[in-house]
Amino acid sequence: MDAQLNIIDVDVHNDLKSPQELLPYLPEPWKSRVASWGIGMAGHGYTSPVGVMRKDCIPPSGGPSASDPDYLVEDLVKPYHMEYVILTGNMTNISTMHDPDYAAAIASAYNDHIIADWLPKHESFRGSITIAPQDPNLAAQEIDRLAGHPLMVQVIMGSAQRAPLGQRQFHPIYEMAQRHDLPVTIHPGGEGGGGTPPPTPAGYPTRYLEWHTCLSQNYMAHLVSLVCEGVFEKFPKLKFVMLEGGIAWLPHLMWRLDKNYKGLRSSVPWLKRLPSEYIRDHVMFSTQPIEEPANPQQLMSIFDMIDAENILMFSSDYPHWDNDMPTEILKRLGADARKKIFYDNAKALYKI
Amino acid sequence: MDAQLNIIDVDVHNDLKSPQELLPYLPEPWKSRVASWGIGMAGHGYTSPVGVMRKDCIPPSGGPSASDPDYLVEDLVKPYHMEYVILTGNMTNISTMHDPDYAAAIASAYNDHIIADWLPKHESFRGSITIAPQDPNLAAQEIDRLAGHPLMVQVIMGSAQRAPLGQRQFHPIYEMAQRHDLPVTIHPGGEGGGGTPPPTPAGYPTRYLEWHTCLSQNYMAHLVSLVCEGVFEKFPKLKFVMLEGGIAWLPHLMWRLDKNYKGLRSSVPWLKRLPSEYIRDHVMFSTQPIEEPANPQQLMSIFDMIDAENILMFSSDYPHWDNDMPTEILKRLGADARKKIFYDNAKALYKI
Repeated sequence: MDAQLNIIDVDVHNDLKSPQELLPYLPEPWKSRVASWGIGMAGHGYTSPVGVMRKDCIPPSGGPSASDPDYLVEDLVKPYHMEYVILTGNMTNISTMHDPDYAAAIASAYNDHIIADWLPKHESFRGSITIAPQDPNLAAQEIDRLAGHPLMVQVIMGSAQRAPLGQRQFHPIYEMAQRHDLPVTIHPGGEGGGGTPPPTPAGYPTRYLEWHTCLSQNYMAHLVSLVCEGVFEKFPKLKFVMLEGGIAWLPHLMWRLDKNYKGLRSSVPWLKRLPSEYIRDHVMFSTQPIEEPANPQQLMSIFDMIDAENILMFSSDYPHWDNDMPTEILKRLGADARKKIFYDNAKALYKI
Repeated sequence: MDAQLNIIDVDVHNDLKSPQELLPYLPEPWKSRVASWGIGMAGHGYTSPVGVMRKDCIPPSGGPSASDPDYLVEDLVKPYHMEYVILTGNMTNISTMHDPDYAAAIASAYNDHIIADWLPKHESFRGSITIAPQDPNLAAQEIDRLAGHPLMVQVIMGSAQRAPLGQRQFHPIYEMAQRHDLPVTIHPGGEGGGGTPPPTPAGYPTRYLEWHTCLSQNYMAHLVSLVCEGVFEKFPKLKFVMLEGGIAWLPHLMWRLDKNYKGLRSSVPWLKRLPSEYIRDHVMFSTQPIEEPANPQQLMSIFDMIDAENILMFSSDYPHWDNDMPTEILKRLGADARKKIFYDNAKALYKI
C-alpha cells in the first residue's frame, strides 16, 4: 500500500449488538413488538455456506461482527489508516418489509441509534440516513428530519424493492434528497425476500452462490429504470450511489441502452442526452466485490471503458465474508487513479 | 463484405401467415380452439414504438414479415449470399403458456408445419425443434419424435421460463437432446408474460425500451443456473446456444461467478472446473443485437476477453426491428475470426 494513501471506505457494515439497542428510540406499539419478538425481517431463504459475516472480527466484547464501535476502529480504521468510514449499517433489508408504518419506525429508530451510539465514538465515522421506501412520503419526512445533522452524509435503502427505482412513486425521496444535497445510495441483500420480486428474471435460483452472483442484475434493472424514467432530468443535482453491485457489466449496459435509446427514443422524450451520459454524470459505484479476471489487465481495460477513476469509490464491505481490503485490490492502477478511487471521489461526493 | 465470405445465419424468424397454418397438424380439441379463437399467447404488455417486425420486408404475397418462404429467400438469403439459414420461427413464447398439454400440442403442430411447409422450399433452410418446456417429459418426447429428421438441427425454447434452466426439472430435455446430439437453444421474447416471473429482479419496468434492454439479465440468470446446477457435468456432450441476449456482459459474469465459486464451492461439489470453463466449452452465443460502443475498439477488447471467435455465431435476427445485416457488423475483426463467426462455428455446431 502506498505509504501516504488516504482512504475513505464507503461501505462499512456496523451492526446492532441486538435488536434491544433500538428500543429506546421506538414508539409504541413497535417498542413492545420488537422487545417481545425481535425485528422480524423477511428472509430470502439463501444461506451462505461460509456465513455472511467474517467470524474473525467478532469483537472481544461479544455480539455480532462490527457491533462494537471501539473494536471496529481497532480492527479496520487504524490498521488501514482510514481517514473516514461511511457506516452503511445492516438494516437496508427494511425495504422488504410488508408494513410501511413499522418499516418507517424501524428506520427512524435505527437512525437515532446511529447518531447517539455510533457517530460520537470516533472522528472517522460518518452516518447514512436509512429509509423505508415502501411509503416514499414517510421516507422523505425521515430525510428531512435528519438531513441537518452534519455527520449524516447520505440516504441509504435496500436495492431489494417492489418496483424499479426510476418509477414515479419513488420521486418524493429523490426530491427531498436533492433539496438537502444528499446522495441516494442502494445496497443489496434482501433480494427475493418479503414483498420483492424473485431475485432473477428466471425466478428463484437454488443456492446462495447463484443468488449472490445474480445480485448485479437487480442493479442493472434499477439503473436502466432511473435513466429511462428521467430521474436525472427531473432532479438534475441528484447523485446516486450503487454499492456492492459490481462494475464490469457497465460497458454492456451502457452500450445496449444507448443503442436501444437511439431506436426507441420516442418513448422517452424527456431524455436530452444518451443514457450513458446520465450514468457517467449522476451515478457512482463502489469497488467491492471487485471482479477478478485471471488476467488482471482485462479489468484495467474495463476501467478504461467506464472512466472508472471518476465513478468508482473504494469500499471494503467489512465485515462481510467476501470483503476486499485496501492492500489487496487495485494495485495496477496509477497513483492518480488510486488517489481518486480511494479518497478524492468520496470526499467530493460526501462533502467531507 | 468479403467477396468470398460464406454465411450461416443462425437466427432467422420465419413466421406463420396466420394461425390457420397450424390447423392441419393439430388434433382435437386444440384444432377447434385455434380455429375459433386463435393461438392465445399471453402477452407481456410491452409494445415497441417502432414495432417488432420490420415493415419493409412484408412479402408481396401478403401476411406478416418473413411468412413467405420464397420471399425470404429473395429478400435475405440471396442478397447476402447465405449458404444456410437456421429458421428459429416465431413460437418460442409457447414457454409462457399455462396449459402444458396445449403448449405441447402447439409445439408439435408448429414443428410439423416447419417440416412440411418450409424446409422443402429452399436448400439453405434448416429447422429447429420447438418445444414447450412446461412438461419436460412431453418436451423430451417431441425431441425424440423429430430428432431423426436430417434438416432439424437444434432444439429451441423461450428464455422466458418459470424457473432457472439449470434446475433438475428441465433435465429430461437435456438428456434427450444429448442423446440425439442436438444443441439446446433459447430465444427471448416472452419475458414477463404468462406464468413467468417479472422480467427484472426489480419487477416490471415501464416500457419496451427498458424491458428489451433488460432481457440480457434473464440470460445471465439461466447461464449461472446451468453451470451451478452441474448440467454440463451431468450432460458432458450438451451444447447450449443463447440467441439474442448480448455478449458484452460475459466478462463480468464469468469473473464474478468464478470468484464466488472459489469462496462458496462447498455448495456445488459436483463442479470439477471453474464456471467460466464450462461456459467456454458448452455455450455458444449469437451476435445480434451486437453492442455498439462509440469506440468500436472497446468491443474488440471484450471479444478478446471472451474468446469470441470460438463462441460467437453470426445472426441477423431478420426481420426484427433491430436486425443486424452481415455487411454492417464485425468489420474490425480479422479474416480468420470473421470466417469462424460467420460460418465455421455454426457449421461445426449444427453439423451442416
